[in-house]
Amino acid sequence: MSLLVVGSVALDSVKTSFGEVSEVLGGAAVYSSVAASIFTQVNLVGVVGDDFPKEYIEYLQGRGIDTKGLKVTKGKTFRWKGLYEENLNEAITLETQLNVFASFDPELPQGYKDIKYVFLANIDPTLQLKVLRQIKKPKLVALDTMNYWINHKKDALLEIIKEIDVMVVNEAEVKQLSKEDNINKAMERIMAYGLKCLVVKKGEYGVVALHQEGFFFLPAFPLKEVKDPTGAGDTFAGGFMGYLSSQDEISFHCLKEAIAYGTALASFNVEDFSLERLRLVKREEVLERVKSLKNMVKFKDN
Amino acid sequence: MSLLVVGSVALDSVKTSFGEVSEVLGGAAVYSSVAASIFTQVNLVGVVGDDFPKEYIEYLQGRGIDTKGLKVTKGKTFRWKGLYEENLNEAITLETQLNVFASFDPELPQGYKDIKYVFLANIDPTLQLKVLRQIKKPKLVALDTMNYWINHKKDALLEIIKEIDVMVVNEAEVKQLSKEDNINKAMERIMAYGLKCLVVKKGEYGVVALHQEGFFFLPAFPLKEVKDPTGAGDTFAGGFMGYLSSQDEISFHCLKEAIAYGTALASFNVEDFSLERLRLVKREEVLERVKSLKNMVKFKDN
Repeated sequence: MSLLVVGSVALDSVKTSFGEVSEVLGGAAVYSSVAASIFTQVNLVGVVGDDFPKEYIEYLQGRGIDTKGLKVTKGKTFRWKGLYEENLNEAITLETQLNVFASFDPELPQGYKDIKYVFLANIDPTLQLKVLRQIKKPKLVALDTMNYWINHKKDALLEIIKEIDVMVVNEAEVKQLSKEDNINKAMERIMAYGLKCLVVKKGEYGVVALHQEGFFFLPAFPLKEVKDPTGAGDTFAGGFMGYLSSQDEISFHCLKEAIAYGTALASFNVEDFSLERLRLVKREEVLERVKSLKNMVKFKDN
Repeated sequence: MSLLVVGSVALDSVKTSFGEVSEVLGGAAVYSSVAASIFTQVNLVGVVGDDFPKEYIEYLQGRGIDTKGLKVTKGKTFRWKGLYEENLNEAITLETQLNVFASFDPELPQGYKDIKYVFLANIDPTLQLKVLRQIKKPKLVALDTMNYWINHKKDALLEIIKEIDVMVVNEAEVKQLSKEDNINKAMERIMAYGLKCLVVKKGEYGVVALHQEGFFFLPAFPLKEVKDPTGAGDTFAGGFMGYLSSQDEISFHCLKEAIAYGTALASFNVEDFSLERLRLVKREEVLERVKSLKNMVKFKDN
């Protein structure tokens, strides 16, 4: 089945101890879509300015990503500038230029309204809700958000959380949203809004998921070099949703597999700047890392 | 087989958001010995002052812990005072009184020299080496250390690391000792000293082990309340070594099981101050948490 991804499409400038890049392809919806496209057909909804390089759109299309929902508008593309210091789990934002993204008003092309799998990447929850309302009968909806919306649009965020199936967020966001410091208690509180599964990204410490059937943990893939963590969480979510939309079922078993696929993809993404490594990843390489990850948590009898 | 534990025996004063305790039973060797005593016969080597409450020694003896190696010396017992704020992974030390511990000079009682399993808890590496030299034919030696010794006695520490089998340390210590920020690279560097297995404690993020056969990860048991993290790492190490010394083999499989037992025990320990919870733990409760932990990392096919 195909997947709908809605979110930011950006030009990123990033500096890490391994170097820097300027105005390269980025944005949550891009990382998610490219990751998901390894497993499924992706339909991207977003907005860019008329300065957005044509080759980037062609690249996405070349991966089988449908860009009918990617609106090109007069003006400048959303830009983000950040750096990572010692703590690779946390980006330091130097500059955010919303540009055309400030007036993003997602209208789904007619054909998109029957899509069953939906990933609402981090945008204003009011817009996430607007997208969701346009989907006729979704089978699985996942959502990401950020501290800004938790602070400024909490009511809208809580409204949509009650309507979705899976939330994919980071540790700090879960604590902030639940107003609870203990991560396990925080997760139970968020689950109580009626989620099927809450997936919490902990950066280099991996992922923990709370499902109606219990907890599930998976470490990050142990890399010896992380060049640029930008997009790791979005790549994870894209791999996770891409894998799920390629399957027939949404069991706990299937969600665990999706977490492993997302984790493997994220590990490739951070090996280079922008989408340099992710774009080269072969399905077999992903399968290999998934297998390694499973081995790293394997007991003789579990 | 029995286990030798050498390390600090202390009177701890601890404050957390759940309350505070003053001059209660503590110290790395105590937490480790009590945890290990669930699985095996423990022989404790340490030193206390003549102010050390007799009932604490009787308590240890009541658990079958041999205290022939616990020297009672004229003077005051080692005291540690600390508090935990929001970050429960890090203690803030308010006061350390070494007292009789400053002149600790471990001499093993004759019968201890044939012991096969040895846990050298965090003390001066020169003393750890002195203890190790007295053991005739150890089968498995594990060691913990701390930032102070890495800074001030690095040569002695590296000397003993080359002679032991398993190092059980925390994340910051591995990075500091290896002078490497990437934890996976750091672990490989430490392994290169000739360890069979390096076990890295990451607090609430669980444990990662690097063995000659590969990586192994286990999350911490997801608690909804942590009252006092003091001794968690020592309890882990004690449970780990206690389990191993109750087994016939030291395979990777067996080390993984030992990590699960140590993790389960540590999770009980942090549920209350001092050894209040740990002293009540039943073997069956430990088995139950071990089973839960295994379930939390279980795939259908791994």
